[in-house]
Amino acid sequence: MLTMLSRIHSLRAISRLSLKRPLGGINFLGARATFSTHNPSYFATNRFTVDEYPYLKRSESFNRLSEKDISYFKSILASSSITQDAEDLEAFNNDWLRKYRGQSKLVLKPSSAEQVSQILKYCNEQRLAVVPQGGNTGLVGGSVPVFDEIVISLSHMSKIRSFDEVSGALVCDAGCILEVLDKYLEERGYIMPLDLGAKGSCHIGGNVATNAGGLRLLRYGSLHGTVLGLEVVLPDGTILDNLSTLRKDNTGYDLKQLFIGSEGTLGIITAVSILSPKRSKATNVALLGLNNFDQLQATFKRSKDELSEILSAFEFWDREAMRLAKQHLVAGAHDPLQSLYPFYILIETSGSNKDHDDEKLNTFLEGLMTDDVIQDGVVAQDSTQIHNLWAIREGIPEACSKAGAVYKYDISMPVPVLYQAVEDMRARLVKEGAIGDGKLFSSVIGYGHVGDGNLHLNVAATEFCKEATDLIEPYIFEWTARHAGSISAEHGLGLSKNNHLHYSKSPSMIQLMRRFKQLIDPNGIMNPYKYLPLV
Amino acid sequence: MLTMLSRIHSLRAISRLSLKRPLGGINFLGARATFSTHNPSYFATNRFTVDEYPYLKRSESFNRLSEKDISYFKSILASSSITQDAEDLEAFNNDWLRKYRGQSKLVLKPSSAEQVSQILKYCNEQRLAVVPQGGNTGLVGGSVPVFDEIVISLSHMSKIRSFDEVSGALVCDAGCILEVLDKYLEERGYIMPLDLGAKGSCHIGGNVATNAGGLRLLRYGSLHGTVLGLEVVLPDGTILDNLSTLRKDNTGYDLKQLFIGSEGTLGIITAVSILSPKRSKATNVALLGLNNFDQLQATFKRSKDELSEILSAFEFWDREAMRLAKQHLVAGAHDPLQSLYPFYILIETSGSNKDHDDEKLNTFLEGLMTDDVIQDGVVAQDSTQIHNLWAIREGIPEACSKAGAVYKYDISMPVPVLYQAVEDMRARLVKEGAIGDGKLFSSVIGYGHVGDGNLHLNVAATEFCKEATDLIEPYIFEWTARHAGSISAEHGLGLSKNNHLHYSKSPSMIQLMRRFKQLIDPNGIMNPYKYLPLV
Repeated sequence: MLTMLSRIHSLRAISRLSLKRPLGGINFLGARATFSTHNPSYFATNRFTVDEYPYLKRSESFNRLSEKDISYFKSILASSSITQDAEDLEAFNNDWLRKYRGQSKLVLKPSSAEQVSQILKYCNEQRLAVVPQGGNTGLVGGSVPVFDEIVISLSHMSKIRSFDEVSGALVCDAGCILEVLDKYLEERGYIMPLDLGAKGSCHIGGNVATNAGGLRLLRYGSLHGTVLGLEVVLPDGTILDNLSTLRKDNTGYDLKQLFIGSEGTLGIITAVSILSPKRSKATNVALLGLNNFDQLQATFKRSKDELSEILSAFEFWDREAMRLAKQHLVAGAHDPLQSLYPFYILIETSGSNKDHDDEKLNTFLEGLMTDDVIQDGVVAQDSTQIHNLWAIREGIPEACSKAGAVYKYDISMPVPVLYQAVEDMRARLVKEGAIGDGKLFSSVIGYGHVGDGNLHLNVAATEFCKEATDLIEPYIFEWTARHAGSISAEHGLGLSKNNHLHYSKSPSMIQLMRRFKQLIDPNGIMNPYKYLPLV
Repeated sequence: MLTMLSRIHSLRAISRLSLKRPLGGINFLGARATFSTHNPSYFATNRFTVDEYPYLKRSESFNRLSEKDISYFKSILASSSITQDAEDLEAFNNDWLRKYRGQSKLVLKPSSAEQVSQILKYCNEQRLAVVPQGGNTGLVGGSVPVFDEIVISLSHMSKIRSFDEVSGALVCDAGCILEVLDKYLEERGYIMPLDLGAKGSCHIGGNVATNAGGLRLLRYGSLHGTVLGLEVVLPDGTILDNLSTLRKDNTGYDLKQLFIGSEGTLGIITAVSILSPKRSKATNVALLGLNNFDQLQATFKRSKDELSEILSAFEFWDREAMRLAKQHLVAGAHDPLQSLYPFYILIETSGSNKDHDDEKLNTFLEGLMTDDVIQDGVVAQDSTQIHNLWAIREGIPEACSKAGAVYKYDISMPVPVLYQAVEDMRARLVKEGAIGDGKLFSSVIGYGHVGDGNLHLNVAATEFCKEATDLIEPYIFEWTARHAGSISAEHGLGLSKNNHLHYSKSPSMIQLMRRFKQLIDPNGIMNPYKYLPLV
């Protein structure tokens, strides 16, 4: 018992914790700022998407941009809302992973739903293809053009329209940055029901269009439940005004739902009404080290029982993720635990009474220690330490991207087989002699949201190439289908998954999706070549 | 201070509480059992819907049932799955409010999605109109026929297909009764994320088809967030297999969302996958008496702050509702508070630690007492008392229905104006000299889900008649539209609200709804005359 007690004691004594990263220090904002302003030639060496994916052919049903078109756009938009400069276009033609590069010659930045309506109506009549773009932080190539599609950026639509301090209903333009909204709500005692690593850059409109999941889904549920209303512009210019702030409204088909997760293929979301919960007064964060995935599952089950209503995040990553995070985090940052463990869990609790939450968390952690379910752990003692622990988790995607050309998979499946996907992929590459020093692959990394059955599988290669792709795909999709999983848990389909949709959806489902697409966008101008399988 | 303390003390001493109703004693199960088995002539005096609503005309595009059709259905269904007996048909032709009465000559009770598919495909080809029916507990006439539509009852599909004890994902047939599912989950430590007064009769398929709200929405959110997947049969016989048990799945348009709340107008839901939360170990229920609606709002705001994550219900009713509940509750039941108050609140907390929850609730109630926000209150001391307090709230709909012919409105709006709807309606009837002894109306009752901004406005008349209707409608719909509310918060549209849809949805929204309906049900055989405005 003495040993146990001393270990518990050490759990809270985290003076060793010396991560010094500020909140949001590792997010995509830095990367975006770099490439959009300080280094315009950042993308010059990137290959074009069409060179990488030679099966993609520009649709002949689309017209090419003419001077007449430019004149029209100039007649409805200020000159500051039109981008044609080649260097300036690069940030809109490339994604931050540097995996996709389009060839658009025009970016339009409307300031209102009416302007979006004018643009889309014109493009629809003139058969000009478009790509809606928010913060451009997507991971599946959905937000950048493939050929010469016109980029419609929502970045000039960033006003908060209203906030109801009684109900928590927030109404805002689609181009509002997630972190800006969260800070706005923080000042009023509320919180955005979603949070993700890209919060410093991503737009709420893009979040909704991609049905973003992220770090708070476990607690507050998906956007299908928290979005109260949308304002959407259809390809024919119709403005669908469904910006309800009501929590309950059973008057007809819930049309907004179809646009949540439609990735810009049906219309452009111009405003969002979303229900924000009260911000919790007390937050605790613990980082735990474990020896195996069975222990991780046991910890998860016990957390649902014992932390229950105060559990707000249950994230995990593996040894490889921690190794990369430590290697690539800013100077001075380091892992607060004494040894390297096969698995890490970050648990967050949020509640209204700090004493109660502390007691629940302590009892929970003591039980885990007593039963030898966890090996080590620290509990943050103040908000800086909370931010520092989160910074490790939030820094993993970027740390992975520094390991080379990273193939990213985002799959969901029953929790018991969650990590088997990583082990099987690793075993496959070992068997093929394709991983290790001087080999095509350097590492296979697993992390994600245990509470949602969501694994982020990252496979780091020396370069994006057909040989590497063929070693991973369709193997990983077949593996996912065999385990009743989804090939895209939260990232969406975009250009990287559309042709693999049949692994997760039946022919009759895909057929009905096509009929909806045809109904709303008969000319197919909305974000073409993506989302649905190419025919 | 002594006074205050003694009042607090009395708050927990609820030996006065002597309600003796068993759990679910006041629900629709009793009513249904009565009319379907013990009293087949229960509905004999009801007027037919078509007599009550003379603007309804049978569509000539539908064929009438022939012997050939009956023969076909006999070839695919067992004889016990076909009802043609006139007396037996009554329970399917009438709704429990006795407001709607159809003239169907045939009820089919398929046992599988395949049988539903065969039936719908045939009906679609033969232009035979159908009405899907679950527990037939709806309040807007959506689940009974108007003319001779064939009733397709899901009552023979009531198997639980699977339950995942790690994730809480439950997969079951559409005809499972809500209360049966909740008891099944209770034995496994989980809870259904929805609950409503009709739980003893209503089907989960009907709950999903009507996007039922109910008593737990405040805590667990709407079905748009908790339903993980659906199996749906389309009018052309296509079985849409979307019974995912994954919490996250971003592969294509979320088609299931369109069927949630579609009231049987697009297809028939044959199975549901739903995420059930862990059942809380501790539950507290308090009944409070208040002097005015401002105090009620103040209590609500403070509950969000102080009870926060353990708040699981915040219901209210007015003096008139309590008067009727006391009058019509079973013998021995009575109000546990000493006086009659203008407003009552039922607060429920659910959490994982009884001591913590008790402390939070006590602190909260003491604060309200100290600040004179509430006048009196009791806290249930055991599960029987909890059930008894809930029985008052759940008994109100039935108590209201015993007050005469009850016009029921189910509207949502911002909380600050929630009760004004009741006051304005009452004032209107007083001004018209239409309410009181010997008058057309006897009372105006308000109750509902404060946490969801959802008011149930009941207006009791001596009979359903045009004069009564005209005094309430469209006044109440115009009032709701003027206050940015919804004319149907959770009951749906059915036959009673479809022509009023324009009060809550714009022409472009209604137009798009029509296009979806046309796309999926081009022959219009699914639950005709309802949901969308008649043209």
